Amino acid sequence: MLAELALPTELASRAGAFTLRAARDGDLDALIALIANDPVSAARGDVGSSEDRDDYARALGEIGADPRNTQLVAELGGEVIATMQLTVLPGLARQGASRLQVETVRVRDDLRSEGIGAALMRWASDVAAPALGARLIQLTSDAARTDAHRFYERLGYAPSHIGFKLSV
Amino acid sequence: MLAELALPTELASRAGAFTLRAARDGDLDALIALIANDPVSAARGDVGSSEDRDDYARALGEIGADPRNTQLVAELGGEVIATMQLTVLPGLARQGASRLQVETVRVRDDLRSEGIGAALMRWASDVAAPALGARLIQLTSDAARTDAHRFYERLGYAPSHIGFKLSV
Repeated sequence: MLAELALPTELASRAGAFTLRAARDGDLDALIALIANDPVSAARGDVGSSEDRDDYARALGEIGADPRNTQLVAELGGEVIATMQLTVLPGLARQGASRLQVETVRVRDDLRSEGIGAALMRWASDVAAPALGARLIQLTSDAARTDAHRFYERLGYAPSHIGFKLSV
Repeated sequence: MLAELALPTELASRAGAFTLRAARDGDLDALIALIANDPVSAARGDVGSSEDRDDYARALGEIGADPRNTQLVAELGGEVIATMQLTVLPGLARQGASRLQVETVRVRDDLRSEGIGAALMRWASDVAAPALGARLIQLTSDAARTDAHRFYERLGYAPSHIGFKLSV
């Protein structure tokens, strides 16, 4: 999907302009740290253990190799400060509408409330979804993330669904 | 993903044994009718209009051509009576766990409460997810579908997330 997305691009935040680009292999450790830098993820085992590094590397490789997936990173001052994954989902419902699914949205904790996440999400809906032909953006947020729920509602997202998960 | 799934297969229900297989182009009209045969979908515009047929056909083609997607149909007595879409999502969170996402689960209304949907979902968690290397199954269900919520909870799914959607 990267060809459609015209990356890298510059986005604005209260912490300054930052670069949005596709993740590279060299971002792996920064991505692992970003995901571990979150209590909900840490409670699920994302603690940045070196034993898990190969699993994260494999996943990053799979995302990068799939034309309907991309892991994006935000870079500020040479550091990876945020990430999100986008997936285009073809589907029959809603008159065959493709959906843009957002997963694993993370902003480094010392840079939250600076408008970085909002800039990422606005880019996803204003730029990425139209460029990718998606008529709907969807994501789920853990019920414990009440701040995130307010954030998504401020951006216009409707909390219209229940997200069910089953570990297998 | 079809190679891993060993389809077609036979599943049991109170309406009799039925066949689970990948959808074919010739299933398009039955699939459009199944999706329209649902008040929540109909309210979103899935009313089986002939004007929308090309859009559904394009979507079914995209699903079938993507190695991480498949549209499945249940066939009983030569008729398509149910469907669901499966998508394998590579991802970094949960130590790089791949997820199996389920979308557009529909059972024809005169055959509901016969265990067909449960058989599909049990096959997804017991057979498909392990075969595809997915450690988590996820789906969202419209908040209006309270019967569906009880159904997924009976199957062991946790309503742990809020599902947000934004039309673009």
